[in-house]
Amino acid sequence: NVYSVLKSELLHDPAFQFTDDSRQWVERMLDYNVPGGKLNRGLSVIDSYKYLKEGKELTEDEVFLACVLGWCIEWVLLQNTFPVLIEPVLQAYFLVLDDIMDNSHTRRGQLCWFRVPKVGLIAANDGVLLRNHIPRMLKNHFREKPYYVDLLDLFNEVEFQTASGQMIDLITTLEGEKDLSKYTMPLHHRIVQYKTAYYSFYLPVACALLMSGENLDKHIDVKNILIEMGTYFQVQDDYLDCFGDPEVIGKIGTDIEDFKCSWVVVKALELSNEEQKKLLHENYGKVDPANVAKVKAIYKDLDLQGVFAEYESKSYEKLIKFIEAHPSKAVQAVLKSFLGKIYKRLK
Amino acid sequence: NVYSVLKSELLHDPAFQFTDDSRQWVERMLDYNVPGGKLNRGLSVIDSYKYLKEGKELTEDEVFLACVLGWCIEWVLLQNTFPVLIEPVLQAYFLVLDDIMDNSHTRRGQLCWFRVPKVGLIAANDGVLLRNHIPRMLKNHFREKPYYVDLLDLFNEVEFQTASGQMIDLITTLEGEKDLSKYTMPLHHRIVQYKTAYYSFYLPVACALLMSGENLDKHIDVKNILIEMGTYFQVQDDYLDCFGDPEVIGKIGTDIEDFKCSWVVVKALELSNEEQKKLLHENYGKVDPANVAKVKAIYKDLDLQGVFAEYESKSYEKLIKFIEAHPSKAVQAVLKSFLGKIYKRLK
Ligand SMILES: [Mg+2]
Ligand SMILES: [Mg+2]
Ligand SMILES: [Mg+2]
Ligand SMILES: [Mg+2]
Ligand SMILES: [Mg+2]
Ligand SMILES: [Mg+2]
Repeated sequence: NVYSVLKSELLHDPAFQFTDDSRQWVERMLDYNVPGGKLNRGLSVIDSYKYLKEGKELTEDEVFLACVLGWCIEWVLLQNTFPVLIEPVLQAYFLVLDDIMDNSHTRRGQLCWFRVPKVGLIAANDGVLLRNHIPRMLKNHFREKPYYVDLLDLFNEVEFQTASGQMIDLITTLEGEKDLSKYTMPLHHRIVQYKTAYYSFYLPVACALLMSGENLDKHIDVKNILIEMGTYFQVQDDYLDCFGDPEVIGKIGTDIEDFKCSWVVVKALELSNEEQKKLLHENYGKVDPANVAKVKAIYKDLDLQGVFAEYESKSYEKLIKFIEAHPSKAVQAVLKSFLGKIYKRLK
Repeated sequence: NVYSVLKSELLHDPAFQFTDDSRQWVERMLDYNVPGGKLNRGLSVIDSYKYLKEGKELTEDEVFLACVLGWCIEWVLLQNTFPVLIEPVLQAYFLVLDDIMDNSHTRRGQLCWFRVPKVGLIAANDGVLLRNHIPRMLKNHFREKPYYVDLLDLFNEVEFQTASGQMIDLITTLEGEKDLSKYTMPLHHRIVQYKTAYYSFYLPVACALLMSGENLDKHIDVKNILIEMGTYFQVQDDYLDCFGDPEVIGKIGTDIEDFKCSWVVVKALELSNEEQKKLLHENYGKVDPANVAKVKAIYKDLDLQGVFAEYESKSYEKLIKFIEAHPSKAVQAVLKSFLGKIYKRLK
């Protein structure tokens, strides 16, 4: 179990002397957050590397190293979703605070203000700690590889992009400034590209390329195709949130209620007339089912399901064309395998 | 102005397409937090490098690069103090929340709970963003240097240590679990070593050593001396918080009120009898001046000023002995210059 190995190395890193409390703190944070993932990205490093080796059997060591990189990618994801994951924890604290405030007044209330911010502090520090784990894992397992420095540069660049994408997302959807007119296709594309596509599509393939001894500067086209594909993947995600079968996707979408900058609402804004636009502004981002129903009615009037089907087949054709223009059959195989896994997905 | 150059490069990093809002967000966050520092660390990279070059004049380029590293160290400091710096921002949000709650009830209160956590999320993301800036700056200016990979490893290791030290500090001084019996000399030493000494004493010298073409693995003794010195520096800081002249140190210390794991209280606990210990437990970490006065009275009874003076001269002697045992006169000069700056400091 590669995760256990990595976790144990982090908890016994010779560069730091843990106290029992702090070791337990990190272990809990990791166990609570990391292993739940689907590990798609981890597997996709191995898959991609296999294609690049063109059928040659992987050694045990190669499989292990590809898994380590897969887990490093999960760590990037974790930084990305960390804010959302800790929300329940923050909520719990705020509820405790609420209780204290209801029962007493200024004096104890004062004490409270003093206490509460620590939660934000600890959250901020946990985020930085996670960011720091990735280079530790890379150093433990890749320090002697010729591509070590490129691997560090790659993770540094993609993590910077991911955190920056997350930032745009957080500040545009900041509560209290609900303004639908900010939601445009270029903004949606930018958030998706940086927040999702780089780390979940480009990063696994780039890792596999480095393991195969390739120079990433010579694979800008591969990067561009994967970013395109990642964008398409996120558009599907947005579409399924609203039009997917909850039984199949395993949850009931709430992007409308949550005022998300979803491809669906951005497309609807593009296509709607003044009256429809007005209704969208009035009803988007509210929890009341009556508001949600009005938004969905507009989506129906605009035939967004048809618009999406069109988008989906056009994206597919474009991606296939780009992929088939690539000189290497092995790289084509990697990219087609990615595309095959997501094309017309229902969940 | 090196800071302006670095900031501008970060705000126009070709790896990310900023929106106007997001560029402004980062610029404000940096301007608000970064340039205020005393830049001791930045200057100490240049100073150390000068000694290592044994009198040879530095080129303009060398001065610039040493400054870049100095600023990178300020960025590490910023991650470290970031939680504290954003506390006023968090507080402001909580106060707004408080108002809303006082004026209305459940319905608007509910909305609030939904809103508030975003502050924690943004704080966590800003922290990660800062962590990501450092490798961007290093790549922009050191990518072609033979010591680039060692520089990345150095910053990665020290940042991991700093964030981990910060974590122990946050979780041991977590409000609501005020328990003085946790405060021991080994714990104090561990917090100080990891949270402060690595990045503010070891890191600048290690940067200068790398710029001079040295292998850090051969300078473990230099590291150990600097960690010792950083610890001594923090003990002074703790001492001055309580016994320093507020006019000279420029602030009124509140470590007692803040329930800090300070060298002074840890030493007091070590030296006190049962009755004094009981009084410390009862009075430490309270805002009321009457409580603070009782703590200070015990410090006086235990002659902690004398105990500190003894500690200070012993530390100095020990450090000088270690430094003079070092084979290189240039390295000795670096270390003595550091020590000279802090020995018997009053602020
Ligand atoms: Mg209430
Ligand atoms: Mg979604
Ligand atoms: Mg929905
Ligand atoms: Mg109140
Ligand atoms: Mg202090
Ligand atoms: Mg004091």
